[in-house]
Amino acid sequence: MGKHGKKDTLRKFSRRDFGKLVGLSLALPALGPSVLRGSGLMKNGDQVTSQRKRYTTKDLFTGSEVRTFTGNSLNEIAFPLGGIGAGNVSLGGRGNLRDWEIFNRPAKGRTLPYTFFAIWMKREGSQPLARVLEAERRPPYGPAFGLPTGEVSGLPRLKEARFRGEYPFAWIDFFDDDLPLDVSLEAFTLFIPLNSKDSSIPTAIFRWRLKNKARKSVQGTVVFSMANPIGIAKEGEKPGNCFANYFGSNLNQFVDESDLRGLVMSSKKHPSDDIRFGSVAIVTNHKDLTYTTHWVRTGWWDDIQQFWDDFSDDGLLKPLPDEGPTPEGRTDVGSLGLRFSLKPGESVDLPFILTWHFANRVNYWDPEPEVKGKGLKNYYASLWPDALAVAKYVVENLKVLEQDTRRFHDALFSSTLPGYVLDAVSSQASIVATNTCLRTDDGSFFAFEGCGDEGGCCPMNCTHVWNYEQAVAHLFPDLERSMRKTDFRVNTDEKGDMAFRTKLPVLLVRWKFRPAADGQMGTVMKLYRDWRFSGDREFLEDIWPQAKRALEYAWEYWDKDRNGVLEGEQHNTYDIEFLGWTTMTSGFYLGALRAGEEMARYLGDVESARKYREVFEKGRGRIEAELFNGEFYIQKYDPEKAKRYQYGAGCLSDQVLGQWFATVAGLGYLLDPSHVRKALSSVFKYNWRTDFSNHANVQRVYALNDEKGLVLCTWPKGGRPSLPFPYSDEVWTGIEYQVASHLIFEGFVKEGLSIVHGVRDRYDGGRRNPWNEVECGNHYARAMASWAVLLALSGFRWDGVPGYMEFAPRVNEKSFRSFYSTGGGWGQFRQRVNGEKLIAALIQHYGSQTINSLALAGIPRHPKKAVVTKNGLGISNTVESVRDKTTIQFSLGVTLNTGDELRISV
Amino acid sequence: MGKHGKKDTLRKFSRRDFGKLVGLSLALPALGPSVLRGSGLMKNGDQVTSQRKRYTTKDLFTGSEVRTFTGNSLNEIAFPLGGIGAGNVSLGGRGNLRDWEIFNRPAKGRTLPYTFFAIWMKREGSQPLARVLEAERRPPYGPAFGLPTGEVSGLPRLKEARFRGEYPFAWIDFFDDDLPLDVSLEAFTLFIPLNSKDSSIPTAIFRWRLKNKARKSVQGTVVFSMANPIGIAKEGEKPGNCFANYFGSNLNQFVDESDLRGLVMSSKKHPSDDIRFGSVAIVTNHKDLTYTTHWVRTGWWDDIQQFWDDFSDDGLLKPLPDEGPTPEGRTDVGSLGLRFSLKPGESVDLPFILTWHFANRVNYWDPEPEVKGKGLKNYYASLWPDALAVAKYVVENLKVLEQDTRRFHDALFSSTLPGYVLDAVSSQASIVATNTCLRTDDGSFFAFEGCGDEGGCCPMNCTHVWNYEQAVAHLFPDLERSMRKTDFRVNTDEKGDMAFRTKLPVLLVRWKFRPAADGQMGTVMKLYRDWRFSGDREFLEDIWPQAKRALEYAWEYWDKDRNGVLEGEQHNTYDIEFLGWTTMTSGFYLGALRAGEEMARYLGDVESARKYREVFEKGRGRIEAELFNGEFYIQKYDPEKAKRYQYGAGCLSDQVLGQWFATVAGLGYLLDPSHVRKALSSVFKYNWRTDFSNHANVQRVYALNDEKGLVLCTWPKGGRPSLPFPYSDEVWTGIEYQVASHLIFEGFVKEGLSIVHGVRDRYDGGRRNPWNEVECGNHYARAMASWAVLLALSGFRWDGVPGYMEFAPRVNEKSFRSFYSTGGGWGQFRQRVNGEKLIAALIQHYGSQTINSLALAGIPRHPKKAVVTKNGLGISNTVESVRDKTTIQFSLGVTLNTGDELRISV
Repeated sequence: MGKHGKKDTLRKFSRRDFGKLVGLSLALPALGPSVLRGSGLMKNGDQVTSQRKRYTTKDLFTGSEVRTFTGNSLNEIAFPLGGIGAGNVSLGGRGNLRDWEIFNRPAKGRTLPYTFFAIWMKREGSQPLARVLEAERRPPYGPAFGLPTGEVSGLPRLKEARFRGEYPFAWIDFFDDDLPLDVSLEAFTLFIPLNSKDSSIPTAIFRWRLKNKARKSVQGTVVFSMANPIGIAKEGEKPGNCFANYFGSNLNQFVDESDLRGLVMSSKKHPSDDIRFGSVAIVTNHKDLTYTTHWVRTGWWDDIQQFWDDFSDDGLLKPLPDEGPTPEGRTDVGSLGLRFSLKPGESVDLPFILTWHFANRVNYWDPEPEVKGKGLKNYYASLWPDALAVAKYVVENLKVLEQDTRRFHDALFSSTLPGYVLDAVSSQASIVATNTCLRTDDGSFFAFEGCGDEGGCCPMNCTHVWNYEQAVAHLFPDLERSMRKTDFRVNTDEKGDMAFRTKLPVLLVRWKFRPAADGQMGTVMKLYRDWRFSGDREFLEDIWPQAKRALEYAWEYWDKDRNGVLEGEQHNTYDIEFLGWTTMTSGFYLGALRAGEEMARYLGDVESARKYREVFEKGRGRIEAELFNGEFYIQKYDPEKAKRYQYGAGCLSDQVLGQWFATVAGLGYLLDPSHVRKALSSVFKYNWRTDFSNHANVQRVYALNDEKGLVLCTWPKGGRPSLPFPYSDEVWTGIEYQVASHLIFEGFVKEGLSIVHGVRDRYDGGRRNPWNEVECGNHYARAMASWAVLLALSGFRWDGVPGYMEFAPRVNEKSFRSFYSTGGGWGQFRQRVNGEKLIAALIQHYGSQTINSLALAGIPRHPKKAVVTKNGLGISNTVESVRDKTTIQFSLGVTLNTGDELRISV
Repeated sequence: MGKHGKKDTLRKFSRRDFGKLVGLSLALPALGPSVLRGSGLMKNGDQVTSQRKRYTTKDLFTGSEVRTFTGNSLNEIAFPLGGIGAGNVSLGGRGNLRDWEIFNRPAKGRTLPYTFFAIWMKREGSQPLARVLEAERRPPYGPAFGLPTGEVSGLPRLKEARFRGEYPFAWIDFFDDDLPLDVSLEAFTLFIPLNSKDSSIPTAIFRWRLKNKARKSVQGTVVFSMANPIGIAKEGEKPGNCFANYFGSNLNQFVDESDLRGLVMSSKKHPSDDIRFGSVAIVTNHKDLTYTTHWVRTGWWDDIQQFWDDFSDDGLLKPLPDEGPTPEGRTDVGSLGLRFSLKPGESVDLPFILTWHFANRVNYWDPEPEVKGKGLKNYYASLWPDALAVAKYVVENLKVLEQDTRRFHDALFSSTLPGYVLDAVSSQASIVATNTCLRTDDGSFFAFEGCGDEGGCCPMNCTHVWNYEQAVAHLFPDLERSMRKTDFRVNTDEKGDMAFRTKLPVLLVRWKFRPAADGQMGTVMKLYRDWRFSGDREFLEDIWPQAKRALEYAWEYWDKDRNGVLEGEQHNTYDIEFLGWTTMTSGFYLGALRAGEEMARYLGDVESARKYREVFEKGRGRIEAELFNGEFYIQKYDPEKAKRYQYGAGCLSDQVLGQWFATVAGLGYLLDPSHVRKALSSVFKYNWRTDFSNHANVQRVYALNDEKGLVLCTWPKGGRPSLPFPYSDEVWTGIEYQVASHLIFEGFVKEGLSIVHGVRDRYDGGRRNPWNEVECGNHYARAMASWAVLLALSGFRWDGVPGYMEFAPRVNEKSFRSFYSTGGGWGQFRQRVNGEKLIAALIQHYGSQTINSLALAGIPRHPKKAVVTKNGLGISNTVESVRDKTTIQFSLGVTLNTGDELRISV
């Protein structure tokens, strides 16, 4: 890679790309990709954001820029890098590498000793400078033995940093007046929707960008040092230096192949089937290198002292005599330095590619003897034998892999959606690529609910928690379908009882617990969604018999009289059982009946379809008659039979959750639309708080003091049980996104956006990590409901069965851009409204799908014809308008492949 | 205790006391006790203090007020409460109770579930309010499962707090506009110099002060809830709720005795010799109570939900049916509420006295089988059988105990020393009453170097670390003498080899390691200091034979040729061995020889005295000739024999450490005074840093970024070894205080004060906890060197052998007040200089000592007579003046008892 102008080239990639594809006529006002944004250092970043005001229209609707972080707001940032099921290392707000979770389990707070980037530079005629490539550490500074030496806490750093994260990319600009260089870092992970293989690579990519701002030439080295970590595996294994009993026979080797050079780290101590076995590679395609495979092995701090003295002397690393693998109980640090020489004004990009390979996972989370301690192989281990092989694959394919990743980023972020929405949507999509999720060697996808700090929390594929997420379903639908196969083919017994958790390895033992009403009925709806999104008939046919059993199990267990309302013990996502009638569970049941009706009819099972419809109609009638109190849907139950943990007359944020799912999945209304809207507006009216100072909550605390948030339940008309269901006073981001998107779907855009803004203000970098929304654990799966906000604001829906695509922008409709993804491809949708004219475009960035009809919204004049071109060539079509929806039919279908552009003028 | 005006009465106690004792002629300018200081809320407290500037004269010399803390500066505060060897609970900056370390070992981060103060209040005609009596929690808010429920994180709190700590007292003023009351807390621990029994009581006292600022009457309740913690003992035992396997059979009982009511917490689960056995009491002498011995025991958060609903309803706690002791695996929470009723303008004090009793300690820190796991009984357990007995003792004697504690506080803080000096001196004196120290049932005193977060670090009585501290020696000299007995009678073998660590129980096994040169020689000096301070001939006679062996062991080990300079392996406090010649170790040797000379001569061993003097003179000559480079004392050694861990040509902050000790102990100059002064000024010139941004330190980090501090060693003339001794680039507060006080002793007052100011700026509440200076562990003993700063600034010295007292104020000499302590008593010294006239006073606050001569400084005119009165009656005297020292001899001696006042006019 050359040294000249790369920075600009890289930053402008997406804009040029778009310009080429879209042409000038659609060049929208100056809303370039966010990577182009200005670089003035925010001065108010030393304060955690103050949160006293209600949101104004300006707060909610202005600007699609994503926030940046400085000062105290850097403190909690940990931006996860790493593939799906591959674990992570996270980039801290200061440029520090933190939370090394690459060893098949969470490990918040794990740093690796002496693992850091540093720079040496010499301006012609000046004294050299050496700095750790991090911003200065921030308070508190008080550990019992001083700040950690393994984090080289006492070495000089750069003064300040400004962090910007647009998953899967993060950028840090560093500021230090002592330096003759502008220094910034681009870090990213490979994340390509619909490409679940390449999105599962165990890698993190770091690209240092240096620009000489001096009048003299500057030469230097950027060095990455890293402790060989092979041997780390278990909880609590957080080495502060190179000594630990799980280290030994660690070996770092320099490799130099055609387009790849670097260090490979391994250990001979552990057998290849051991969880401690593995390898790490740090490689580059840069050519001018200096390196050392290891530091000295003598006592005290000799190793880092000699390294730092050597490096800061001339930026060159003196070779040390080969000492072979490390002795028992210790490991080595290796350092790879990339040399540069910059004339005034020149720039260079210095890439470091980190890969890892720890094939062996063990079930540490289940107590059942059939599965406890059982081994599992990682999917990536079925593709590559070790970290060097991964590195070679990445380097060889980097151009395409990075291009696709960047196109996803650009399609998502060069949007006219509000910046905080893009932030919410993208940041929580990262959950799929954290330790919450894993893939086994056959490619199957499994997931906890979230992560404790050192172990997954609440295994596995919990049906009711995964009811809320929409990101995996829309970005990696093959992984989502993998979960459906597990739900129905592994966990549903012959009676139709669905275990709502999965034991791994599968089929050895089944989770024994009462079924979850919301989880089981919701999973039938998810099957419908995933079938329609994929258009995959085989997938449906394969699963339908079990799905039918699961649906009809309601008639054995919760709705014996088939009146369309669930009764009896309804275990649910609040970890208790609701009794009596509630829309929270019965809403899913109505949705499942409707989904069942559609699926049965599609597969020719007309009788089942009729039955489901009949029960659905009964249930809907009873619910409307019995549970809607004029403002919202309540729970009816016998307080004598349930002294605890119900909600009764309360206003539940999840009260029309099933309806929300039906809307997302295109099932239409389950309940009276006017009641749904009234219920949603009541949820906002009663459950949205703009201050928590006086909110008395003895349960878990996710919002407090001056924060804003949506409470799970309130009792605006009184009737709060003395012991309402646990979690009722809590605030869950997954529910907030669900309600927010539902509000937007129903036209309460400002209300919905307020909720989204409120969530992200709580995750402001100083209070909490923006890339880790917590509930019962870190990276909590429910938070992936945020993807529905994008769906709601763009009004996007894809139905793969008829090849139907729909857009109905609900914000910035006159000049709109947003990401879309179908079962086969993804890209960006754009529309401009000019008077009565609407110009729209689909720019396909990846994959392929055939569109048979495309519905657009907001054209009130009922147009009769449309001009449609694909890559400039006309496409015949017919137009039909109903209310404000204009549907364009392509009798022959339009197939969009990567790079294709479809333009519509109506 | 009454309800009217107590707040003012309490706050004014010390001033009235002083007024009475001192009379108007000595009433100094408006520098009342710090408890009277204003209450305007600091507005800049949301920032951690910014530290860019050098200190101005104004910074260093103006104001004896001690800083207060608000905003971010509250974050790290943990103010330790509890007696010597009794463990602590700490008061957090927000009023939260944190770090429950009452179970015989450190436990940073341990909170007790549901253990908090809360208030309910109702203003006549208004709705009631209930609040947790803490300021709002502060970011970050991000744990994996939300903020802890056991800390009632989701209950409403008060808006803001301002914390002021003047050990052993802490005050918090709370601010919340919603409240009709002014709310503040006084918390303190019993700490009475020279009374090591009552300073060892396992107690913490909390007094809530409420004042009605409304126009209507206000009634209410302050309630303290606490989990019965009996069962907690070991590392990692940090229960987040009432469930843990070490709980069970926990029982809370209400007691109502003559002047004491409250809850006693116990458990029948653990036998009386188990480390888990113990009891806790929460009592009050307040009469109007509401309480519950336990909360409900059902699931989820029923317990706290019902408690909070019950309490916040009417401030009264509904009695629950007796359920007996808890079932296995759980404990109970009990709540004690103190009712109040306040007319407009009225105030009330509501006292809570917490006591605890965990008799059984176990040696968890030593590996040797002879002592590992061995049991030790606490001293306090030899005095009281359980927590209730402790509580009764405290309540019965509270008037006197609190009065003596408060007099100590007032004598110390109603001083004209700079506020940050008082802060440094007092805050680190707290170390004696933390888990760094312990007392066994015979009253003996032992100490770690400091505390890891969950275990003592570096056992026990480490001679070289304890070389630096002066607080125990001057405040609790009986405890200091206990250490000397252990040093010489337990740890020194027949050859004179002194083990520099102690194994507990003593006499079972001896620490096997090479002797520490600085530790062993320093301990001989400490013996001299402790003998002179006590004037106790028996103590000296008892120990002298062993001390002589220990001193002369140098001639076997380090100074075989008796040339007065140590050679060979000199293990020392940097945990390595110095080789060759260095003043760091040989300075102690010279001091030990001089101390030995004095002790031998006193005991009639003239020959030994002569020998010691002879070697001393040789050594001094050689050191001056060989090691002083014109600016400072260097190390001379053979680099071929010591490739690592020396300092050579460096400027060592500890280079005249032995001289410092000699000065403190009254041994005079060991080295050329002009060289000493030059060396000290070189240490300040070269080792004092006003910014650490570019300080490259791979060792442990105690100062960084914009902070100020004194580095252990620098090489201003070059010659830094490639691997200098570990710690050389570090910053240790114990050494900073040592150097600072030495600089002040030698007249470099501004330099010395700068160092002290620098330390305390690092411990600003936001960066680090002001009541926990860390080095190799929390509450690190070396930091008690700060007491020497008070000695240096007041020029105070007490020699109990001749009954000689000396003052030589070095700051604010014209209007000076400072604490003094002798072997028998303590009080406050005051002087005013008016033209050529000096008026001085000694106000004895505690104990008794007989003064035969009193030296004052700063009277250049060589007065020939003095007017001296004791309690108004004349005392005959003679006066002698040498240079600026005026010594007043009392031929009959003057005995000062508690309450006596000696006035001197010259």
